[in-house]
Amino acid sequence: MPRYRLTLEYDGRGMVGWQRQPQGISIQGLIEDAARHLNDGAPVPSAAAGRTDAGVHAQAMVAQIDLDRDRPPARVREALNFHTRPHAVSVLHCAIAEPGWHARFSATERAYRYVILNRRPPPALEVARVWHVPVTLDAAVMHQAAQVLVGRHDFSSFRAASCQARSAEKTISEISVTRAGDRVVLLLRARSFLHHQVRNIVGTLALVGQGRRSTADVAAILAARDRARAGQTAPAEGLTFLWVRYDAPDQTPNARITSA
Amino acid sequence: MPRYRLTLEYDGRGMVGWQRQPQGISIQGLIEDAARHLNDGAPVPSAAAGRTDAGVHAQAMVAQIDLDRDRPPARVREALNFHTRPHAVSVLHCAIAEPGWHARFSATERAYRYVILNRRPPPALEVARVWHVPVTLDAAVMHQAAQVLVGRHDFSSFRAASCQARSAEKTISEISVTRAGDRVVLLLRARSFLHHQVRNIVGTLALVGQGRRSTADVAAILAARDRARAGQTAPAEGLTFLWVRYDAPDQTPNARITSA
Repeated sequence: MPRYRLTLEYDGRGMVGWQRQPQGISIQGLIEDAARHLNDGAPVPSAAAGRTDAGVHAQAMVAQIDLDRDRPPARVREALNFHTRPHAVSVLHCAIAEPGWHARFSATERAYRYVILNRRPPPALEVARVWHVPVTLDAAVMHQAAQVLVGRHDFSSFRAASCQARSAEKTISEISVTRAGDRVVLLLRARSFLHHQVRNIVGTLALVGQGRRSTADVAAILAARDRARAGQTAPAEGLTFLWVRYDAPDQTPNARITSA
Repeated sequence: MPRYRLTLEYDGRGMVGWQRQPQGISIQGLIEDAARHLNDGAPVPSAAAGRTDAGVHAQAMVAQIDLDRDRPPARVREALNFHTRPHAVSVLHCAIAEPGWHARFSATERAYRYVILNRRPPPALEVARVWHVPVTLDAAVMHQAAQVLVGRHDFSSFRAASCQARSAEKTISEISVTRAGDRVVLLLRARSFLHHQVRNIVGTLALVGQGRRSTADVAAILAARDRARAGQTAPAEGLTFLWVRYDAPDQTPNARITSA
């Protein structure tokens, strides 16, 4: 049963997220249904490095599908792109996976970008791609406060009530907050994230950027291990899954994609 | 009758273009209808630096509206943004215009960007924002051929049949073609452009990028002054109006917007 490794780009707008749901259009559902055409109509199991929520986008998500027999990877890519039309999912790359490789469990680092449009006028060109925050944010102060969260911590204050992870301990390897014109861009890297962890961190840092919370407050929120202490969950539309890294022997071009 | 100068961002998708039409949603119609709320319900005349076609976007279009009486510019901007909702038009800036200034006739330079997504898989994140060309383009060769078009020429071979300009003579001050990953980006600057001139130039350069036309062919097409000789009109969705310049005494921040 050959496993194929897919690199996917998608626009999360109007979708229920990666995971197949009883109602609505999911990326998983689109890929699996398209893949059945390559599998004599039989169901195709799939998995992804990140189970993105409704409205969250991906620039280079990595997923897997298991087919009953070997097919040329380029043909798999073309067929998936044909059968997922007209939905905003595109298979950028397809390859036969290394033995034992798993899209989710073999991943060693994931990167997300969150974009805040920080200006008074609403977005027109980036509707559903940014969080519109009309009050001025101090990106440098946000960056400073974010460094409190880097490293290994119990992130109970930043996890969704629905989060199913056994432990709230996670290691964030990087958070950077930079301003580019009227956009405040956050980059986050970790081996893995809790459900809503990125969006809850962004919601809290947005309060810091407005001067409503300090770096010391962020440290206290983290130490409290209490979701009620952190800020609102930032909206899904500002979030994009950027890339995922798999360590040797599965070093692949995907991990080289820049986060710019 | 005070004139207000507006800087607009818009997503041309699903719109009939700048100009008001009997059918469909136009940017002009949205702005004029919103502005009536500031004008005791009386019609508000407007004009723009560029009358973009259906599907063409703008990052910093400059337009004007004439109101019956003075209002604070910030209040005009807010009211227009309120009344154009939920359409993808945003007033980024509003100011009282200099005496004698006209959004269209005072403009001394306009800049457009055209983006080609040059890869086999279709776009997912940039649907309606790029022209998807799946065959490989040589951007360096396109750039070289484009230089034939720079300067003052009769652009009859690159104007739409419907173009209403008296003369086909125009002066292009810059065309650059660069590759950034899987995107081929064209930047064009001129005092003014003929109808479809940018898109017809892009359509021809795309043939050059595929090796189907040479630099010499582009020179011959230009010299022929015959629309039938040039390539197809590139689709509207790849085109964005970037900025417009007005010379002193009306030097404004808008002309400083980078074209990146």
